[in-house]
Formats: sequence, structure tokens, C-alpha cells
Amino acid sequence: MKLSSVVDSLIEKNESKIVFLIFDGLGGLPMEGGRGTELQVAKKPRLDELAARSICGLLDPLSPGLTPGSGPAHFALFGYDPFEYNIGRGILEAAGIDFPITDGDVLARINYATVDKNGVIIDRRAGRIDTKENERICKKLQENIRLSNVEIMVEPVKEHRAVLVIRGDNLHGDIEDTDPQREGHAPLKPRAMNKESEATARLVEDFIKKAQEVLSDEKKANALLLRGFSKHRGYPSMKERYGLNAFSIATYPMYRGITRLLGFTVCTEAATIEDEFKALRENYGKYDFFYLHIKQTDSRGEDGDFDGKVEVIEKVDKLIPSVTSLNPDVLVVTGDHSTPAKLKAHSWHPLPVLLCSNYCRPDEVKTFDEISCIHGGLGRMESVHLMTVALSNAGRLAKFGA
Amino acid sequence: MKLSSVVDSLIEKNESKIVFLIFDGLGGLPMEGGRGTELQVAKKPRLDELAARSICGLLDPLSPGLTPGSGPAHFALFGYDPFEYNIGRGILEAAGIDFPITDGDVLARINYATVDKNGVIIDRRAGRIDTKENERICKKLQENIRLSNVEIMVEPVKEHRAVLVIRGDNLHGDIEDTDPQREGHAPLKPRAMNKESEATARLVEDFIKKAQEVLSDEKKANALLLRGFSKHRGYPSMKERYGLNAFSIATYPMYRGITRLLGFTVCTEAATIEDEFKALRENYGKYDFFYLHIKQTDSRGEDGDFDGKVEVIEKVDKLIPSVTSLNPDVLVVTGDHSTPAKLKAHSWHPLPVLLCSNYCRPDEVKTFDEISCIHGGLGRMESVHLMTVALSNAGRLAKFGA
Repeated sequence: MKLSSVVDSLIEKNESKIVFLIFDGLGGLPMEGGRGTELQVAKKPRLDELAARSICGLLDPLSPGLTPGSGPAHFALFGYDPFEYNIGRGILEAAGIDFPITDGDVLARINYATVDKNGVIIDRRAGRIDTKENERICKKLQENIRLSNVEIMVEPVKEHRAVLVIRGDNLHGDIEDTDPQREGHAPLKPRAMNKESEATARLVEDFIKKAQEVLSDEKKANALLLRGFSKHRGYPSMKERYGLNAFSIATYPMYRGITRLLGFTVCTEAATIEDEFKALRENYGKYDFFYLHIKQTDSRGEDGDFDGKVEVIEKVDKLIPSVTSLNPDVLVVTGDHSTPAKLKAHSWHPLPVLLCSNYCRPDEVKTFDEISCIHGGLGRMESVHLMTVALSNAGRLAKFGA
Repeated sequence: MKLSSVVDSLIEKNESKIVFLIFDGLGGLPMEGGRGTELQVAKKPRLDELAARSICGLLDPLSPGLTPGSGPAHFALFGYDPFEYNIGRGILEAAGIDFPITDGDVLARINYATVDKNGVIIDRRAGRIDTKENERICKKLQENIRLSNVEIMVEPVKEHRAVLVIRGDNLHGDIEDTDPQREGHAPLKPRAMNKESEATARLVEDFIKKAQEVLSDEKKANALLLRGFSKHRGYPSMKERYGLNAFSIATYPMYRGITRLLGFTVCTEAATIEDEFKALRENYGKYDFFYLHIKQTDSRGEDGDFDGKVEVIEKVDKLIPSVTSLNPDVLVVTGDHSTPAKLKAHSWHPLPVLLCSNYCRPDEVKTFDEISCIHGGLGRMESVHLMTVALSNAGRLAKFGA
């Protein structure tokens, strides 16, 4: 029996509130000759005080040593097996522009590119055309391409990036990338990986052919490369699995998109971190579960900006009382994965977690960082278990077995 | 999706070097009234200094509470699921004498025994005949037994132990032991456990019958007992799975044999611990992954020789600079399992591990032993994850999911 099915079968409802405060890319590493990790250096008295009355620990986003993308890392946080629900790049990209994906859609990420007169790629990013240019080209494709029996949507993202959505019956998304991942080669054919995807692959081939004609008079974006084909199959929602009315607060569209896929109501009004905390307070009466996402820790980590990441942590620390004063039944503070400034990238390092509730068993951890949390009562566990622990602390899980 | 398939699908290549220094049976226990475990008593300043700049933890070779044999313990260290790849005794024994096993061979361990005139076993070890005697008897069997359509090899090991190899087409190894594991009984029949192994079981029966005739004039070794039948199916190599050119340094043939099964190039020249470290240095330019095996910690543990085990640890400690001066990208020091002198046997106790790399997150552990490592940042994990963590630290794993 799958663990997720066990959890789902034990759900009980009550009036409790659960808040997940998620710092993207929270975990870090000490810089050479430095004073510790970003969290160790940051002055964050409120988070430390919270850790002191919480149970703490370390989370492996997937499994020891594996570095996750944002999709699997978030699915795990919400208790969805990240290997089973590995979301394709096409879906993630569409989620990232708040595109309303429907069940059965096949999606792929588009990169506009430049090819020479022989069809050989000379620029995989079409000179990074600006987003306005991108919008014009997407519209041109959308208006000039018709395929039989299916609807085609071409949605601009940023610069040279867009999303292709094919909507119709009996589509399948197991199709190989057409992006050869290097210049000096022609784009590849969209090959079906299995029999059932063959008809869809032919549709894609037809689309590409027509797109080449439409783009032939473009100077820069005269070709397109497709990758991350995926069919949206629909996920059981937080409501269906846990009986939770879930609310998502994120400034970045991709995280709103991921949570929308799981049936969260999505706040689209928050532009700053302060807005996010305000949205939490304003909507606190209406939902049971709240996801508040801080993007900037990851962004500063990706930039290699150690001090900038420290500043974001310190800034959020000052806003902690606006959550704790709501007195949620369960408050979890953690991240989706580590993004150490030292690495300028997502990494495999486990990340600290704290869970505060009236029924948690506080441990001896008094500061919230990667090293202190080693000694926490949660030990080291995979993120997928966090939601189960939160539900129990909220009194929302019955016992298993007689 | 299997975790091992996920890991294998993320492999990236680079020029990094990974060294696994494996003390066989490293973990220990305090003796009655003693001063701690073997590792706690040993003076090992270099390993302690290394631990201080490493991430440390505890490994369960298989799963909490399970005691492993050498085969599964090693498979787990290299990231091979020890339950899936549980190697039969016959294969292990053959690997242990550097016998070149080929795919499709069926192997079994032979114990020479003494039976009375009614065929009842009166000595399961044939008076522990010496190895020379063993070699003479194996040769005699080999020269006098022919089976139809298959090749038979009888290879001496030590004292009363040998290996039977059956080579041919369509052989199957699911055959029950003929060793009743006690005296006063006749040897059992080699029963097939499933339909497809029936033909092979009949071949084995024929072999045993002929062997009894050949051995009838022997005083001691006038019978044989077979156990651990297994068909060699071939394993994906370290090269196939991880893209690693792996080099194995061990003084004991069994460990060379296990690594040969996984596609390691095997050093056959090292007779002493000093030779092993020399072989590491001399071959350092030629490979990506190095396994250096210290057998003596296990041997002293099996002997119940606490002080002897301490001495081996102290001896190896002095050689640590010859590894660290190579500056490997990832250096792991651990064992395959525990062999406490107090128990004189393999045990289920988790064992300490340290991993040193430029991208590890050092914890507060300053001494390398079973108790200090409880506080390490790796926490407690199963050995099968160690290889994943090492690959990530070497920059050889891409992220999972978009």
C-alpha cells in the first residue's frame, strides 16, 4: 500500500489552520573563510525564538544526495511523491504564466532560435529577443496556424521563451525534444517515445512545418525548438486528499502555477514580501492551509549573493510576528531545497525545518540553521513526510489500524 | 520509478576523482568495563582532523537492525540495492578466488564432508582437510566427471571448501542446498525451487552421483555438500551506471572479486596495507573512482581482538596523508558493516562515515567514531544512498525535474 494512500485514508476534518512559510532555496553553505552559512550569519531573533519552542530537523527534498527542480521539491512539501508526480517542463512553464491548463492538454516549452539558410541552428536563443517581440511572434503563429481536430495555443513567456499548448482528445505527451541542445545542428524531429504518442508527434511535426513557413520572414526568431513535452493528467487536489481549503501566496507566477495544479486558491495580488504577509492576514479566515512563498532567498543564492540572501532572511524575520500573532495551529518554516550562494544553483544539501504547534515535542534546538537543526527532534527525513507530520499536529489524522 | 534508475538518469561526466576508503567491519562496541569502542580508543589524529572538515553521520548497511554479509554490504556502498542484487554464496566464493565467472554460469559452494557406510554425515568439514589435499580432490573430480552438454569446473578454496561451476546454455540456479547443516543425516537432494531450474537440478544430481563414486576411496573427503546455488546474471557496471572508471585495491581476493563483478579494474599487486596506499597513488591519474579496502579491522574483530583492531585503525591513520595529499574531489571514509570485537562477528550496528569535499557542509563532529558521528550532518542513512551523495559532491549529478 502506498504511504500516500494510507495518509489520505486517515484524514479527519476540524477547524485547525496550518501555515507553511517556504523560503525558496533556504539551505546554504559556508563561503571560503566565512563565518558560516547564510542562515548562521543572518540575525533572525524571531525565527530563533520560534525554533526554541518548535520541533526542528533537516529535510531531504527528494532522497539523500539528489538535487531537485522546483516542481518535485514543491510536490514533496505538499506530501505528493515527487518521483510519481514529476511534472514536465512544458507544464511547469505554462503554470509559470498562470495559463489555465486543462486535463488532457499536451504542453511543451518553446525556445525561439535562429537558423541559417540550410536550417542549421546558429543561435539557440534567437539573440534573446525581447518579450514584446516574443509576444508579436506568438500572436503571428497563433493566428496563422490551424491543425485538424485540435486547438493550438502559443503563449509568450519571457525573452525567447514561450509555451506550446495542444488541446484535443486522445493526445499523448511522450515525445522527444526537438532541441539538440547545441548550435551547428538542425532541430531534431519530434519523435514519439511510444506507440500511443505517435499521432500527437505527427501533429507536432505538422505544427513545426507550418511554424517554419510563418517564421521564414523573421530575422532572428526564424525557427523554434521544443522540449519538455508533457501531458497534463490532473493531480488529486489538496481538498481531495486532505480535505484542506488551501490558499497560495507567491510573488512569482511559477509557484502560483504549481499550487493551482493542486487545487489551491491562488492570490494574484502580492507583488512584494510585505504584500504576501498582508494577504495571509487578510485571507486567514477563509482557508485552512496557507502556503507563503519567499522567492528572493533562491534568487540571491542563484546570483551567488551571500549577503543578499542573508538580508532577505533578516527582512522576513521581522515579519514573523505577523504570522505568529495569528496563532496558527501548526506553523512550519522551511524551504523547498538548498540554493547555496557558494554554488549559485539548487543543491542536494538537506535544509532546516521547524514545526511549531501546541502538540509538537520541542527539542534543544535554539537557533534556526542547517547545523543546529541536525540536533532536532525530527532528525533527518524526506520532505514528503512533512505534510503528514503537520496534519497530525493539526489533529487532522486518525490513527492507523485498530 | 526505482531510485537507482533516477540516479542513473541524472549522471553527468567531469574530471573529478572520488576515493572510498573502506575499513571492513569498522564499527565496534565497548568491551565490558572498557574505555569505549575500538574507534574511540584508537589514537587517530588524522582521521579526527579529517572528520572536523567533513560531513559525518552513521550508515545502516542495509536497514536498521539487519546484519549484512560482505556481498550485500559492498553492493550497498556502491549504490546497488543490496536486496535486489543479493549475490549468492556460490558466486561470492568464486569471486573470492578470482575465478573468471561468465554470464549464465551456475555456481555453488562445496564443503567436503565425511559420511559413514550408510551415507550418513559424520563430519561436515571432512576433518578440515588441508588446502593441498583439497586441491588434489578437486583435480580428481574435475578429471573424472563429464556431464552432457555442460562444462564442469571444481575450484579449490581453502581447507574443506571449494566451488562448483556449471557452464552451459539455459542453466538456472534456484536449487535447494544439499547440506542439511547438521551431522547424523544424509546429504539432501538438490531440489529445484521452480520449473525452470529442474533440468539444472538433474544435472547437479548427476554430478553428485558421479562425485560420490570418484570420492568413494577417500578416507576423509568421501562426500560433498552443496549450498548457495546461484546463477550469475551480470550486473550493470560502475561505468554503465555512473560513467566511472573504477579501480579496486584490496588485499583479499573476495573483495577484488566483488568489485570485478561491477566492472572495476582490479589491482592484484597489493599484499599489505602500505602496498594498497602505494597502488592508490600510482594509479591515481588513470581512474575516476577508487575503492581501497582495509581487511584487517574485520579480521581482528572476528578474532575478538579489540586491541588488534585498535592497532589497525592507528596504523591506517598514519597513512591518511598519502590520500589527502592527492586532494581528491570527494573522500569518503567508512566501512561496509560493524564487526565488534565483543561479538567476534558481523553485526547490525550502524557505522560511522565521513565525507570530505569542497561542497560538503561540515558539521560539529570533531572525532571520527560511532558516538560522535551521531551528531553529524548526514544523520543516519542507509549505505545505498552514500554513492548518490558522493556523486553530487563530485558534481556528477544533474538536478531531478524542472
